[in-house]
Amino acid sequence: MTQPRGFLYPRTATGDSSLIPAPPWLYSGDLLTIEYRTDPARVRELLPAPLEPAEEDPGAVALIWADWQSCAASREELLDPVRAQYKEAFAVVRCSYRGRTYSRCVYIWVDKDFAIARGIHQGYPKKLGSIHLTRPHPYGPAPRIEAGARFGATLAAADRRLAQAVVTLTGPAETNGFVNGHPMAHHRLMPSIEKGKGWALDELIESGAASFDGGVPWRGEADLELFEAPTEELARLEIHEPIGAYYRRVGVVWDGGTLLESSAKDES
Amino acid sequence: MTQPRGFLYPRTATGDSSLIPAPPWLYSGDLLTIEYRTDPARVRELLPAPLEPAEEDPGAVALIWADWQSCAASREELLDPVRAQYKEAFAVVRCSYRGRTYSRCVYIWVDKDFAIARGIHQGYPKKLGSIHLTRPHPYGPAPRIEAGARFGATLAAADRRLAQAVVTLTGPAETNGFVNGHPMAHHRLMPSIEKGKGWALDELIESGAASFDGGVPWRGEADLELFEAPTEELARLEIHEPIGAYYRRVGVVWDGGTLLESSAKDES
Amino acid sequence: MTQPRGFLYPRTATGDSSLIPAPPWLYSGDLLTIEYRTDPARVRELLPAPLEPAEEDPGAVALIWADWQSCAASREELLDPVRAQYKEAFAVVRCSYRGRTYSRCVYIWVDKDFAIARGIHQGYPKKLGSIHLTRPHPYGPAPRIEAGARFGATLAAADRRLAQAVVTLTGPAETNGFVNGHPMAHHRLMPSIEKGKGWALDELIESGAASFDGGVPWRGEADLELFEAPTEELARLEIHEPIGAYYRRVGVVWDGGTLLESSAKDES
Amino acid sequence: MTQPRGFLYPRTATGDSSLIPAPPWLYSGDLLTIEYRTDPARVRELLPAPLEPAEEDPGAVALIWADWQSCAASREELLDPVRAQYKEAFAVVRCSYRGRTYSRCVYIWVDKDFAIARGIHQGYPKKLGSIHLTRPHPYGPAPRIEAGARFGATLAAADRRLAQAVVTLTGPAETNGFVNGHPMAHHRLMPSIEKGKGWALDELIESGAASFDGGVPWRGEADLELFEAPTEELARLEIHEPIGAYYRRVGVVWDGGTLLESSAKDES
Repeated sequence: MTQPRGFLYPRTATGDSSLIPAPPWLYSGDLLTIEYRTDPARVRELLPAPLEPAEEDPGAVALIWADWQSCAASREELLDPVRAQYKEAFAVVRCSYRGRTYSRCVYIWVDKDFAIARGIHQGYPKKLGSIHLTRPHPYGPAPRIEAGARFGATLAAADRRLAQAVVTLTGPAETNGFVNGHPMAHHRLMPSIEKGKGWALDELIESGAASFDGGVPWRGEADLELFEAPTEELARLEIHEPIGAYYRRVGVVWDGGTLLESSAKDES
Repeated sequence: MTQPRGFLYPRTATGDSSLIPAPPWLYSGDLLTIEYRTDPARVRELLPAPLEPAEEDPGAVALIWADWQSCAASREELLDPVRAQYKEAFAVVRCSYRGRTYSRCVYIWVDKDFAIARGIHQGYPKKLGSIHLTRPHPYGPAPRIEAGARFGATLAAADRRLAQAVVTLTGPAETNGFVNGHPMAHHRLMPSIEKGKGWALDELIESGAASFDGGVPWRGEADLELFEAPTEELARLEIHEPIGAYYRRVGVVWDGGTLLESSAKDES
Repeated sequence: MTQPRGFLYPRTATGDSSLIPAPPWLYSGDLLTIEYRTDPARVRELLPAPLEPAEEDPGAVALIWADWQSCAASREELLDPVRAQYKEAFAVVRCSYRGRTYSRCVYIWVDKDFAIARGIHQGYPKKLGSIHLTRPHPYGPAPRIEAGARFGATLAAADRRLAQAVVTLTGPAETNGFVNGHPMAHHRLMPSIEKGKGWALDELIESGAASFDGGVPWRGEADLELFEAPTEELARLEIHEPIGAYYRRVGVVWDGGTLLESSAKDES
Repeated sequence: MTQPRGFLYPRTATGDSSLIPAPPWLYSGDLLTIEYRTDPARVRELLPAPLEPAEEDPGAVALIWADWQSCAASREELLDPVRAQYKEAFAVVRCSYRGRTYSRCVYIWVDKDFAIARGIHQGYPKKLGSIHLTRPHPYGPAPRIEAGARFGATLAAADRRLAQAVVTLTGPAETNGFVNGHPMAHHRLMPSIEKGKGWALDELIESGAASFDGGVPWRGEADLELFEAPTEELARLEIHEPIGAYYRRVGVVWDGGTLLESSAKDES
């Protein structure tokens, strides 16, 4: 008797219903990155052992808006774009594990279920949100990518605005920032189905882009505001000092990661 | 140094950001259930070993629409109802495990992220969808719960309609159907982050309501249609013979389940 | 040659595509009403001549959340409930016209296009919003309609929360409030397609329910907050003094109104 | 006493709440146009007198997907992009009025309320829909604008898919099609608030772009499907013969139109 197939649920005889196909996952998109310093204690409190704060600049935060078109190897999602297009906003900090510096996404909101599912696999702590980001355009009132161009970005969840920003481009840059530039160190977690039995899955994993392409990054100046909400703590990452802002158009491939350690308790 | 807290991600110093609080989870809602027989082979192909088809009526399917208000023990979500209200549509079959009959949800669509997260924990294979269900009302044109009352129900995902039904109530009933009446036997799955390494989590779990309250079920007659879609296989559960239709208003508490077996491969 | 048909656009050979069918329009729904006093000058500034402030209690405001199922005479929308169900939140004040007191909706947000279209016809100044309202339920954690029951209500537009309230029921009441209890005096406006030519349509109309049914109103106490937003002025109707709060389940029929006066300029 | 201000409702002391500011309206966006021939009788039945079918090629139809960022003269919406970005899909035919050829939008779906409001003013018969369109991108799997590039486009309303297309680019073109290339002849309609009294507003207006900028159009080949729905008649414009497909990035300014004739009945 054949077994149900599929990279993820729901699993069927064909595997065609899986919420997401197997990697590799391919992305075309635009990244608006705003980096700033917060109280390093606010970063530290988000890092479970054995992760430790980054040795240098431990209060650095990157808040990133991204406007994506994505697909698996068949690329068929691109032709049914409701299945390919999504937007996200996410907060990244750095941490140290066994002497190496990692990036780590501590909050993230997306607007499609397939993006949530990929995040479950990759250890991104995804919620649904409403994310908007000005797009560059060669004609009409929307900005070109040039000095003086202004891009707006907003994030809301559960009908509350959580963040908004305006970035004014100043000129080409060497990099797209440094906070999100390391491999990601993420936890993949599943509580035991039995109450009080701890985690059924508690993995620390590493992953990063399998390949990357992109245009010249642009530097800018950001005006960023964070707002309180009853079930969100993004605003706890208070803005103490701006670092920089960046805009870049990129192509990315993600194709799996590496297990660093697994700490799930024995459920027997 | 304290550790981040929270039933699920994102985990923080307070635990307040968790996409879902810990169980118990409380629900008030209305269930529209349509039961029919499909080709038993179409059910069997959805059952991974060691699950086997139910001994009696192995082709029975329940397609259920539910209109919920839900919360955790604090009940605070009920006062910010964007965080409490959601709708879902799901297909349930029965199966046999070690000689006992279980219900099993094989497809499910919901319209909120917290419902997705609960489903990940409970082993429901949730996707986002657009679900609508006529609500009973004591005044005006909407139906009362009475003989002759008609309720419509629709399901769409990725901008395609997947199912639609009209149920006409005929009279009070003894039960709300039999397909979804057993404990649930669900898989909780997480692929290894490393390609080709199988499952990091592959559990078969059992769960059911910790408590249940409800009104008199009503029986009805259903007119049900299923539609094809490129990434959905609900329509493969073809309608061969109607069994019955039911409407019931219920209160439910869910408070954890039991691990039946765990088959994750060694990733070392 | 036959002419295109339909109560509203798009008009076709059959008339079946009209965004809304002709009245009568039938509604089943629940109303959560919060009445308070604001600075009467803030009400007056919203009243175009020849409307004048109400003689008594001119600063009274009703902020109303409604959870509707609606249809035209065929009632077919009720069986395809994505076409019947919508929610709205709206602010009502009173005014005086030729010595008679009218109610007038000054702000309103709805979540479906057919509700926008009806509003265009009826003179409601509708925008899209995200509206949520706790629903009573006989089982589980959601409230019954009884003393001590608490209902939450929220309004957002353009990803910003504009209002939120919690109402605690205290007991049955004689009425559902007084601010929204008069015939509505609304303007129907269409700017001239030619710039600087004033209004192509500028009507003052009167309308109200053609028939009404409803349960016993319940009185309650409200905790209401209004929030600023760049393109909204609901919060200008500052809360100076609470009047009361009410919950009622109703059935309503709307079937046209009366033209009071028309002031469109001659465009020739 | 000052009067409430605003280009459209809701009108306030400041005018800041108007659902839309006064023109000019500026647009940056991408147009995917598919032209085909249908039965000319299906076009004719959509044309109210005194409009007549176009003399040449009276069965020509353009189905157009557009992905817009738009704003009024202040351009402030671009920095709060939830207020600027929207997508639309619309069907255009040609007609003749007093010997001149016009374009005419017969069906249109948009995904934002400000776009609905502009359409009311401009005589576009707008409904809400869910519209998706592949976007070109310089990196990763999304298409560049080049020969062989493929763009998908879909339209749904009320949870039903109404149209889907895939366009494969073949090379640069002289034009972006001919069906949508004339001034628009649109009706602006408002039924009388009094039943049976005809139209309170029934105008035939002409409008077009006040200025236009754009890149080189690209020609392509289209695979287009239309689907039936109970409240839509797009599929009545059956595809008899393909004409062409086009992709173009444009900037547009709209700044008012001209009244051709007004036929509202006397309501006195």
